[in-house]
Amino acid sequence: MTDLSTSTSGAQRLPIRPELAGLEPYGAPQLDVPVLLNVNENPYAPSDEVVADIAAAVAHAARGLNRYPDRDFEALRSDLAAYLLAESGVALGPEQIWAANGSNEVMLHLLQAFGGPGRTALSFAPTYSMYPEYARDTSTEWVAGRRAEDFSLDPRAARAAIAEHAPSVVLLASPNNPTGTALPLDTVRAVLDAAAQVPGGCVVVVDEAYGEFRRTGTPSALELLAAYPHLAVSRTMSKAFGLAGARVGYLAAAPALVDALRVVRLPYHLSAVTQAVARAALAHSAELMAQVGALREERDALVVWLRARGLQVADSDANFVLFGLFDDRRAVWQGLLDRGVLVREVGPPGWLRVSVGTPDETQAFKDALVEVAGL
Amino acid sequence: MTDLSTSTSGAQRLPIRPELAGLEPYGAPQLDVPVLLNVNENPYAPSDEVVADIAAAVAHAARGLNRYPDRDFEALRSDLAAYLLAESGVALGPEQIWAANGSNEVMLHLLQAFGGPGRTALSFAPTYSMYPEYARDTSTEWVAGRRAEDFSLDPRAARAAIAEHAPSVVLLASPNNPTGTALPLDTVRAVLDAAAQVPGGCVVVVDEAYGEFRRTGTPSALELLAAYPHLAVSRTMSKAFGLAGARVGYLAAAPALVDALRVVRLPYHLSAVTQAVARAALAHSAELMAQVGALREERDALVVWLRARGLQVADSDANFVLFGLFDDRRAVWQGLLDRGVLVREVGPPGWLRVSVGTPDETQAFKDALVEVAGL
Repeated sequence: MTDLSTSTSGAQRLPIRPELAGLEPYGAPQLDVPVLLNVNENPYAPSDEVVADIAAAVAHAARGLNRYPDRDFEALRSDLAAYLLAESGVALGPEQIWAANGSNEVMLHLLQAFGGPGRTALSFAPTYSMYPEYARDTSTEWVAGRRAEDFSLDPRAARAAIAEHAPSVVLLASPNNPTGTALPLDTVRAVLDAAAQVPGGCVVVVDEAYGEFRRTGTPSALELLAAYPHLAVSRTMSKAFGLAGARVGYLAAAPALVDALRVVRLPYHLSAVTQAVARAALAHSAELMAQVGALREERDALVVWLRARGLQVADSDANFVLFGLFDDRRAVWQGLLDRGVLVREVGPPGWLRVSVGTPDETQAFKDALVEVAGL
Repeated sequence: MTDLSTSTSGAQRLPIRPELAGLEPYGAPQLDVPVLLNVNENPYAPSDEVVADIAAAVAHAARGLNRYPDRDFEALRSDLAAYLLAESGVALGPEQIWAANGSNEVMLHLLQAFGGPGRTALSFAPTYSMYPEYARDTSTEWVAGRRAEDFSLDPRAARAAIAEHAPSVVLLASPNNPTGTALPLDTVRAVLDAAAQVPGGCVVVVDEAYGEFRRTGTPSALELLAAYPHLAVSRTMSKAFGLAGARVGYLAAAPALVDALRVVRLPYHLSAVTQAVARAALAHSAELMAQVGALREERDALVVWLRARGLQVADSDANFVLFGLFDDRRAVWQGLLDRGVLVREVGPPGWLRVSVGTPDETQAFKDALVEVAGL
C-alpha cells in the first residue's frame, strides 16, 4: 500500500531549479480598471468585419481540428512575407519567415538554438524586462550593457561590449521598450559587424515588436536582412494588429537561421486555429495600418502635451511614452490608479510608461495626471 | 557602409548549438494519402454542433483580442477539473490544473522547472520518441532504462534505475506510446516511492495522453494525486477530444508543483482563442466520450483480428495498436502506403503501429495488410 508518510515528505522537496526558487511568475498586474494603459495593448478592438472573418476562418479550420496542423504553417508564412513587403518594402520569401505563440516564444526558440548553457546573451539596459527571463529559461548567461543617458546606443560601447563578452546572441529592441527609442541603421550595422567577429558566431536579434509605430523616416532593420545572414528581425501581431490575445509573433531572417529554429520548436507548436486567426487578420492589414497611423498621431500629440507641461519625455517610435521624472513615481502611479488610470511603473528610477490609448483614454490620463502631479 | 564580405562570412558560422547541428526537425512525414493512420489522430472530425460552438466562442473572444488573454486561464482550469472529475471520478481544484499549447509544451514546462543543466530525466524504452527531444531542448541529461519484453515495467528494475541515476524527473507514458501498454497503479506507486528517496527530490510524470482510451478496469494515475505531491498526470485534448489541431495539453498535480510551472511559462502562453476553443469543446465532452467508446471497441476488434491472422499484437489501452513482427517492416510499411494506407514505422525492430480509424479506414488497412503481408 501507499506509504503516505514517505510520499508526503517528498512534498517539501520538489526539485525546483535553484534559480527559480521563490520567484513569482512574470507579469504586469491584471487589475480591473476603466483605463488600461499599462501593457501597450492596441486600444481598438477588432472591427465587426475582422471578427466575422476570424470566426469564419476558425469555423473552417474547426472542421479539421481532429488532424494535426500544418507543422510548417506555409500559408501563414507566405501571408506574413506579403505583409512585410507592403509594410516595409522589403521582399522576403516564406522560407525567411518564422512564427510562434507570441514573440516571446520566437525569442525562446532563438535562445534554444543559439544560446543555452555555456553561452551568453547580451542586451543594453534599460530594455525589455522579459529578456533576462528568456535567458534564464534557456540557461543562457545574461549580460546587460548600458544605453546612453538619452536611451540611445553608442556604437563604440556596443562594439566594446560584444568584444568583451563574446555573446552568441545580441538582443536589440528597436523601438526599445520601455523607452520608445528606435536605433539608427548605422548603429545596428555596427553591432552586426562586431557580432560577425565573435569566434563561434553571434546572432543579432532586432526586436521590432513596436516597429509599425515608428515615425516617418525611421527605417526598419528588415532592410539589412539581405546583407546580414546573422540578423533576425522579430515582429508581433499583438500591437499594430491589435491581436495581443491571439499570441502571434514572428521573425524574418536568412533561411539557414530559420532552419535552426525548426529543429528546436516543439512539433505542431502553432495551432490550426492560431494560423487561421492570423491569416484572417492579415487579410485586413490595410484597414489595421490606418488605425496605426491614428495611434502614431495620438502618440506624437501626447509627447508634445507632456513636454509642454514641463515633463521630460523620451522620443518615442512606439505606441507608448516614457515620461518623468518624478521624485516618487510610485505615488504618481498610485494617484493615477486611484483615478481609474493604470500605467506602468517601469524603466529607470523616476520614469513612468503610458500606452497610447483612444482619444478618450488619453484625455482621462491627462486629466488624472494634471491632478496627481499638479501640472 | 556595410562590409558584405565580413557579414557573409558570418553566414557560415551561425552559433547553432553543437547538439543540434545537422539535425532534422522532428515529425512524422506529412503525406497526402487517403487513409491516415500514422499519428494517432482521432478519425472523427468535430460535429457540426461542436464546430458552431467553437466558432461562436471564438467570435466572442475575438471582440477582445486587442487585450492580452487571462494569463492564468482560470475558467479553462475549472472546466478541465470538472471534466477530469466526470471522466475519472477524481476531484481536483483549478489550482491543481495546468495547461499549455499541446502536452509537449506541458512537458517542456516540467523539464524547465525540474530538469535542466546538471539534472537527469529518466524514462523506460521503448517509449515516446519526443521525450529525449524535450530533454535536449532543456539541456537535461537523458537516460532510458528498459521495459520488459512484453512492454510492461518491472517495478524492481524501475526502482534500481531511479536509485542509480537519481533523476529529478521520471517520465512514464501510460498508456505507453508506441506500445499501448498501461501501467498498473502498483507499478506507478513503486516508482513514486523510489522517486521520493532521490536526494534533492524527483517529480514523476505519468503521461496519459491516451488515458481516455484505457480498457474498462484500467485505472488512471489521477487516483494517486491525493497521496503523492511529486506526481503530475498529463493529458491532452488532441486524442480523445479530436482536437489535435487546437494544441491543448494539460496536467493535474499538487498546487505547489503547478506553481513552479507558472514561473517558467512564457507570459500569456495560452491564447484567448485557444482558451475559447478548448472550453467550447469541453462543453461537448459527453458526446465526445461516446465517440471514444466506439474507438475503443474498434481497437479491441482490430487486436482480435490481427491476432487471428497470426500476428503478434501488444495489449493496447490506447487508440493505436503495435503489431508485428515483420522481418522487413519497411517493406510492409511501403506496401501499405502504396495501397493508400499510411501507418507508422516506429517502436522496436519488426513492429509497426497503426492508429484506430473509422470502420472504413480500418477495413482499408486490413485489406491492404492481407495483400502486403500475405495473411
